[in-house]
Amino acid sequence: MTPDGATLRQHPDDNVAIVLAPGGLQAGALALDGTPLIEDVPFGHKVALADLPAGGAVTRYGVTIGLATHALGRGSWVSDDRVTLPPAPSLDRLPPPAILAARSSAAVRIRAGATFDGYRNADGSVGTRNLLGVTTSVPCVRGVVEHVTRRIETDLLPRYPNVDGVVALTHAYGCGVAIAAPDADIPIRTIRNLARNPNFGGEVMVIGLGCEKLVPESLLPEGQEDASVLRLQDTAFTGFQAMVDGMLKQAEGHLDRLNRRRREPCPVSDLVVGLQCGGSDAFSGITANPALGHVADLIVAHGGSVLFSEVTEVRDAIPLLTARAADDAVARALAREMAWYDAYLDKGGADRGANTSPGNKTGGLSGIVEKAMGSVAKSGSSPIVDVLAPGERIRRKGLTFAATPASDFICGTLQLAAGMTLHVFTTGRGTPYNLAAAPVIKVSSNSEIAARWHDLIDLDAGRIATGAVTVAAMGEALFSLILDVASGRHTTAADRLGLQNDLTVFNPAPVT
Amino acid sequence: MTPDGATLRQHPDDNVAIVLAPGGLQAGALALDGTPLIEDVPFGHKVALADLPAGGAVTRYGVTIGLATHALGRGSWVSDDRVTLPPAPSLDRLPPPAILAARSSAAVRIRAGATFDGYRNADGSVGTRNLLGVTTSVPCVRGVVEHVTRRIETDLLPRYPNVDGVVALTHAYGCGVAIAAPDADIPIRTIRNLARNPNFGGEVMVIGLGCEKLVPESLLPEGQEDASVLRLQDTAFTGFQAMVDGMLKQAEGHLDRLNRRRREPCPVSDLVVGLQCGGSDAFSGITANPALGHVADLIVAHGGSVLFSEVTEVRDAIPLLTARAADDAVARALAREMAWYDAYLDKGGADRGANTSPGNKTGGLSGIVEKAMGSVAKSGSSPIVDVLAPGERIRRKGLTFAATPASDFICGTLQLAAGMTLHVFTTGRGTPYNLAAAPVIKVSSNSEIAARWHDLIDLDAGRIATGAVTVAAMGEALFSLILDVASGRHTTAADRLGLQNDLTVFNPAPVT
Ligand SMILES: [Ca+2]
Ligand SMILES: [Ca+2]
Ligand SMILES: [Ca+2]
Ligand SMILES: [Ca+2]
Ligand SMILES: [Ca+2]
Repeated sequence: MTPDGATLRQHPDDNVAIVLAPGGLQAGALALDGTPLIEDVPFGHKVALADLPAGGAVTRYGVTIGLATHALGRGSWVSDDRVTLPPAPSLDRLPPPAILAARSSAAVRIRAGATFDGYRNADGSVGTRNLLGVTTSVPCVRGVVEHVTRRIETDLLPRYPNVDGVVALTHAYGCGVAIAAPDADIPIRTIRNLARNPNFGGEVMVIGLGCEKLVPESLLPEGQEDASVLRLQDTAFTGFQAMVDGMLKQAEGHLDRLNRRRREPCPVSDLVVGLQCGGSDAFSGITANPALGHVADLIVAHGGSVLFSEVTEVRDAIPLLTARAADDAVARALAREMAWYDAYLDKGGADRGANTSPGNKTGGLSGIVEKAMGSVAKSGSSPIVDVLAPGERIRRKGLTFAATPASDFICGTLQLAAGMTLHVFTTGRGTPYNLAAAPVIKVSSNSEIAARWHDLIDLDAGRIATGAVTVAAMGEALFSLILDVASGRHTTAADRLGLQNDLTVFNPAPVT
Repeated sequence: MTPDGATLRQHPDDNVAIVLAPGGLQAGALALDGTPLIEDVPFGHKVALADLPAGGAVTRYGVTIGLATHALGRGSWVSDDRVTLPPAPSLDRLPPPAILAARSSAAVRIRAGATFDGYRNADGSVGTRNLLGVTTSVPCVRGVVEHVTRRIETDLLPRYPNVDGVVALTHAYGCGVAIAAPDADIPIRTIRNLARNPNFGGEVMVIGLGCEKLVPESLLPEGQEDASVLRLQDTAFTGFQAMVDGMLKQAEGHLDRLNRRRREPCPVSDLVVGLQCGGSDAFSGITANPALGHVADLIVAHGGSVLFSEVTEVRDAIPLLTARAADDAVARALAREMAWYDAYLDKGGADRGANTSPGNKTGGLSGIVEKAMGSVAKSGSSPIVDVLAPGERIRRKGLTFAATPASDFICGTLQLAAGMTLHVFTTGRGTPYNLAAAPVIKVSSNSEIAARWHDLIDLDAGRIATGAVTVAAMGEALFSLILDVASGRHTTAADRLGLQNDLTVFNPAPVT
């Protein structure tokens, strides 16, 4: 990384630099290597450090992020509309695992005896929260479940001070869907695994209607008895109040057990941290995501579990990832998930290029390749030990690729289903994103949004761009914050404000 | 319809009868025509009135609802697992419009001078409610919008007594989606048209994030100024409280104008009533849906507008519907929507048979043909004057087929987008279904659920099955109830309990 205060080059091979000067740079200003700007270039956007011929490669992160649509002189603004996408990397001849190189690069400082205070579950997993989960087999019950969770909050929770809250796992799936279609296994296992999230401590209520396609009993965690399932159509209930009373009575049994639990010191190897970005800008790949990469390496080095995701944002970086696969099976699984998503998009008349948003472009990103290179920086440098299909549950400690759409809420929902107990979310443009089932730490990629959204952002990684702090130091600070939030010692910005987003279940199969 | 107290034959050609006796009928009991039951047949299920050969047609509603899997003797239980589906009707050679026959059958009693008290809008449409709509261009803003709508309810609404409420139009669309994919026009126009629903009186706030794909301005009703759009990323807002204050200030302007509105008598021709069924049973097609058919004919005869929907539940009845098309263009549009959905399901590895639920089968329905014949009874006998693709807005008064999935929440959302101002929902199994943007009248198909769910069901159409009341009389009673609810004189069961379901936007295009 070569910064000169006003511009920054990411990799020695790059022929573009990113403008760091807060208001952008004007024509005549000097960029790296003494390059004089021949036009104004906005903050976060790219300036050509060399003459680019028509069709010539635009190189950032040391890779071709696009091709110049026409000849661009040295000092030009390499704007989004002057760059076209190269073809996606072939999935047929990907680099094989190169285990030694990957392992040796994950050199981080171990904190001897580092722990967090978590809730240990009977199945060995550890929660960062002690929540009563109320899951649902069909959206029909949503209004009733929301009524009951409000009643639990006001009437019951005050008597159970060790319970952190009640979370309704409501969603749009369960009936009115082609439940036997080939892709229906994705939403079904997602909802099932959501109920098994360690933050619910194995105590989950299931509310069903009674005539739906999704069988309520199938949503119970293993070993939990049928008594935890309640159907509104049960003939035992005459009228609405009887349903509500039935649910409140059932809730008390769960709350009794949850209330007896206490936090205890747990090693970092018991953490499952999910990583995601949304509303990215050109700084995401310089500041916030590399800091997440460092923290990912730290957690893995301490024996913990890290999930990274967002298929359309790793698709163009896939050769870098198969090289980091722990073995051939993992490399093949990475290619399998990319191929599945290629086919899914193709069936709908789209491709990976549909990922980028207007905000990404305003933020300086010239298409999905540049975005992907910034996005995968979150994964650090550890070997990839496993790959989960959407909705699957984590199987191994270490760094796992959990295949999900990049869509923020779908990705967050699928990472919860995978068993995530804490979420770290980076943003350049700003988002009030939050989840109810696990705490979300929001990290900004630039200092401007961190200052403006002072009560919505938890950590400003933008200071990396100016050299005020190193990636490693920011990673260390984030690691400490993760341990504090996981332990319940620190409340995140969005939790302080009481903001929450809904679960969004990924259903690639038809509705009926 | 031939009832004998214990069983009922729907059409003279039928070779099955429905068991009406509350506990079902036991072997040895007598069905219609003196048919002795050779085994027990549950309530709502079918008994064979003649010997059925293997592969022979099972006839109900005068049509083949399925084929016997093996020979079934007279008096047998014609259960779901003893019937296979016939192929779907071809879409190539459908019966042409037969205008006179259709028109003459819609003979209903006109109530001279019938009106309801509605809110007349500047565009000529009429609302049944006076609501402030807060729409959203992306799910990221959901938590903030929910916070603000709660603040509007507690802090502002008490000062605006003529405003009926505030409704957040939140949804999962707007970013993280393939917004240029061929089918993306469906969710986009749905969200746009939701904001134009007459119950919002043309006063809609749009809350966006600022970096999303869906452009917030595109969601404004025509003629409404840009000042009604607010983006959280607007640099004018420093911190969360500034965003909230900005939204509350904007809300006051809208509430001021809404509060000056008053209900006024409006002819029935200003009503837009959407019809739907969910959790159907074998009685749906005998009781509740025919009563809806009568009310549909009544509303149309009074010059009003009726929407019926649920493509997979009309697919098998399509020859009956093209015959009722007002002209060839309408008949072709009906076939076009069926073909679109056939292809959509096929692409996902499913077909129309995926529609039926376990509850339908427990309720006595033997597959989608029988369900469809019961479902289309809702449409009455008026000519079909128009066909809307999913998310389109109503264009003509009279009976319109609004193509939607049968999924309850998706259908309700699309009918709201079409301009529905009052919803009638029939159910046999029971559902607490409700919407926030328009009142929902729930009609039961059997008296058992109406009695058990006494505070969740608005009207018991089950009494039709026993002959206690005629279809026409039930239709007249429902018509009166519709006028009372539309006028705000009568509160529906679900509104009294404060239950609500979320909007669910139909997105057949991929997410990214
Ligand atoms: Ca992302
Ligand atoms: Ca994302
Ligand atoms: Ca809600
Ligand atoms: Ca239906
Ligand atoms: Ca339905």
